[in-house]
Amino acid sequence: MYIGFSEAETFLRNCEDAVIITHRNPDGDCIGAGFGLKDILAQIGIRSRVVCSDEFPKRYAFLTSAGAGEDFEPKTIIAVDIADVKLMGDYEKIYGDKVQLCIDHHISNKNYAEKTLLHGDATAACEIIYDLAKFMGIRMTKHCAMCLYTGIATDSGCFKYDCTTPRAHEIAAEMMRSYDINFSRINRYMFDVKSRGRLMLESKITDLMEEKLDGKLVIVAVTQAMMKEMGVSMEELEGFAPLTIQLEDTEVGILMREREDGVFKCSFRSAYDVNVSEICQNLGGGGHAKAAGCTVDGDLDEAKKLLVEIVERALA
Amino acid sequence: MYIGFSEAETFLRNCEDAVIITHRNPDGDCIGAGFGLKDILAQIGIRSRVVCSDEFPKRYAFLTSAGAGEDFEPKTIIAVDIADVKLMGDYEKIYGDKVQLCIDHHISNKNYAEKTLLHGDATAACEIIYDLAKFMGIRMTKHCAMCLYTGIATDSGCFKYDCTTPRAHEIAAEMMRSYDINFSRINRYMFDVKSRGRLMLESKITDLMEEKLDGKLVIVAVTQAMMKEMGVSMEELEGFAPLTIQLEDTEVGILMREREDGVFKCSFRSAYDVNVSEICQNLGGGGHAKAAGCTVDGDLDEAKKLLVEIVERALA
Repeated sequence: MYIGFSEAETFLRNCEDAVIITHRNPDGDCIGAGFGLKDILAQIGIRSRVVCSDEFPKRYAFLTSAGAGEDFEPKTIIAVDIADVKLMGDYEKIYGDKVQLCIDHHISNKNYAEKTLLHGDATAACEIIYDLAKFMGIRMTKHCAMCLYTGIATDSGCFKYDCTTPRAHEIAAEMMRSYDINFSRINRYMFDVKSRGRLMLESKITDLMEEKLDGKLVIVAVTQAMMKEMGVSMEELEGFAPLTIQLEDTEVGILMREREDGVFKCSFRSAYDVNVSEICQNLGGGGHAKAAGCTVDGDLDEAKKLLVEIVERALA
Repeated sequence: MYIGFSEAETFLRNCEDAVIITHRNPDGDCIGAGFGLKDILAQIGIRSRVVCSDEFPKRYAFLTSAGAGEDFEPKTIIAVDIADVKLMGDYEKIYGDKVQLCIDHHISNKNYAEKTLLHGDATAACEIIYDLAKFMGIRMTKHCAMCLYTGIATDSGCFKYDCTTPRAHEIAAEMMRSYDINFSRINRYMFDVKSRGRLMLESKITDLMEEKLDGKLVIVAVTQAMMKEMGVSMEELEGFAPLTIQLEDTEVGILMREREDGVFKCSFRSAYDVNVSEICQNLGGGGHAKAAGCTVDGDLDEAKKLLVEIVERALA
């Protein structure tokens, strides 16, 4: 059942001992939404715990170090920024069919929860949670504001991408005026700071760029063998997909990373008008119009051939 | 004389045949401010021409291709985003002592104009011009909105840097709601799209990074000989200074580019709290707290030694 702010408020004010599930491969938006909601619940006297099937990356320690919450037997199951129970990882089995409230901004949300607060046009789940807190009349903590700013900034590429709403800008302005968050330091950590290793990897990714379809498609394929040679893991190659659409004429970029089982995890990016979410849905994946993903079996050349064909059709 | 919006409005409504001067090495803010103001003047029936001692870079063609204005003998001289007449390049001699109105956001503004509308805390000159147009009750054109958005976005690093004001976010929201500008395409051109050559240069700049003072200072020095070897010009190395503060521990980054006369043009960036404007002022230059510049004579090793010493003192 889809609900609005009023029902979401009633739910939250009446819940107890909540577990807040974030998605696997956690990013700024689900971490910000999870820890931000935890703060909001704490302010209305409700204890909660943020869980994730994967570890929270170290770069989000400025949000997560406050603690994910004590251990308790949950009475309330909440999911944030999760469009599909499959994205819960290990928590799918435990809580997948027990989610009472889902707060999400993915238009592809599978409506798996008892109640879903879905704003498909919001920049980030954090945008919805900010407006919900405001609706509830809660003056959030500075930590909460930092969480929610981080989610909005990371999902919008620092207000750069199409998915950025006017509301996202208004919220940023309100947060800067009311909570004195050190947004430039957050942005430096989220967007500008790199390890020497990452800088080197970016150069390598650039070297691996293959232009197809007159440059309209760029594919970067990284095999297990290449990862071993470069001394990097799948996880360390997270976040490199945007590099595939750096050249002016590129319409679609794909970063292919070979998993240990030989399956290629493909991260799609669209520079302009191609809806890569549709492409990925046809391949059993999903996501947003400009950023989506799927997996492809088979050997590298065949996988590439398939991807070139399917993008060629989408461009036609 | 420093003036407010009301006097600036009176001035603009009563001026005739205006030349709008932008600074040498034009960037998104002075181009956006110049062409945006030209549109605003046109709407109140005043013809104007945007001038610059250097050519407008091709990447701003989406703003400049509307035309810089017809040739006429100017009766009004306006400067935008220019803190010092020295920054006018060739136009200093012609108009340096004749500027009637200056609209600027540099706190270091030398107050060289008859009237100066200075908001030292604005993100960009474009932020001031947007608010001035609003004050004047002018419904701007979409082209004007694109100009002003571009200036705000480029000067703030797409709302990333410290200099971003809440007002900058509010203006972006208003522009998105009212003018339907394709901001994501502007941002793609301003921040994400690179030529293959630029991608390669970035790798080279990364290779040239020298860490000093336990990594708190990073210097990248590019000599004329190196530019010849890489086949690039000074101008093509514009905009690489932010790459000098990519590593987490870096406090100050300096990009040194040797001019043909052997003098080093030094672009400073501050990652955190060091005021590089002060450092550069001591060396005869200037700029903002987090981005400033100066020139240094002498041979490369001596110049580097000087820079290391002066940054060490600033860090102490």
